[in-house]
Amino acid sequence: MGAQARPTGEWADVTPDAARRLLTAAVQSFAERGYHATTTRDIAGRAGMSPAALYIHYRTKEELLYRISSVGHRLALDVLRRAHDTPGTPAERLAEAVRRFVRWHAEHHTTARVVQYELGALGEQHHAEILALRRETDAVVRAIIEDGVAAGDFDVPDVRGTTLAVLSLCVDVARWFTADGKRTPAEVGDLYADLVLRMVGCRA
Amino acid sequence: MGAQARPTGEWADVTPDAARRLLTAAVQSFAERGYHATTTRDIAGRAGMSPAALYIHYRTKEELLYRISSVGHRLALDVLRRAHDTPGTPAERLAEAVRRFVRWHAEHHTTARVVQYELGALGEQHHAEILALRRETDAVVRAIIEDGVAAGDFDVPDVRGTTLAVLSLCVDVARWFTADGKRTPAEVGDLYADLVLRMVGCRA
Repeated sequence: MGAQARPTGEWADVTPDAARRLLTAAVQSFAERGYHATTTRDIAGRAGMSPAALYIHYRTKEELLYRISSVGHRLALDVLRRAHDTPGTPAERLAEAVRRFVRWHAEHHTTARVVQYELGALGEQHHAEILALRRETDAVVRAIIEDGVAAGDFDVPDVRGTTLAVLSLCVDVARWFTADGKRTPAEVGDLYADLVLRMVGCRA
Repeated sequence: MGAQARPTGEWADVTPDAARRLLTAAVQSFAERGYHATTTRDIAGRAGMSPAALYIHYRTKEELLYRISSVGHRLALDVLRRAHDTPGTPAERLAEAVRRFVRWHAEHHTTARVVQYELGALGEQHHAEILALRRETDAVVRAIIEDGVAAGDFDVPDVRGTTLAVLSLCVDVARWFTADGKRTPAEVGDLYADLVLRMVGCRA
């Protein structure tokens, strides 16, 4: 899994090619120096373009951050929704959701860090949109946990707090994960799926 | 608990007063705009001093970040060590460690965010020192978990991975915690202590 290959997969739906290259360059620049220390000139230069060429695709630096955040949140949410809709017991669905969500955050850790750490730099309208996506993410995980409680498979005294903790645990993988570490994204996913089933008091 | 009161407690051992005010100003500036977008002039201005006055206390911006990171890591490590040395069963000590560590990260969330997110901006020597403190932090939690396994109280197939996950869960409180949220630092600490005892398969 080369570092070069990742952005293509992550931003595959972004067209044209120049817009995609600019997003990739923006993620790398924001990750290295932070949003506020990065200029649109830095991003254009990194993508091998002129600043003027950047403005054809994105009006402002904030729009680049918003696109990164929006795509990142939607991809991670899709991963959870697919696990939610999978047939199986609540325990199987929760384990699958955690496995996939953790893998996503490990494999896309640079994007995930930018998305999580630069939330405060979004404009008001964009911030509200992203918060709505975060509430949906929370709702998908909470629904699986509630299914498990209703089925008598899970023992969870505080469903909201446990949902928050499960998502926090998975998201924070992006902070500490490095590609040259001891564990692969899939191995972290398996470990975390087991830990989360313990957190919900799974009787299986 | 006023926002103004916190820095005093956190940096209480830093003297003289001007050096402490500069650290507080640096934490706020780094948290708002990121390390790379902040100048020593910004920090001095926020502390009500001239840039020249700043250089009496700190040679570089990196030295400010290093002091913040060093003090932050040492305070959090002390919190864990006190829990480790408390008399009691491994379950009681682990619950106490998590309770205190989580409270620290909730109450000092601005400092903790700077400490965690700007690690890559430290110079080589300082980075190595901070990594050593992080390994000590890891070792304290791992020791309590190993005590529990040895006593037959915990069931942990992967002690290193579980230690990593427990610390990650607690540290990430700094990312999402806000003083105007629904839960107090103590309430999050209690919830997390229970979740972590579940993660280690505590039979109690």
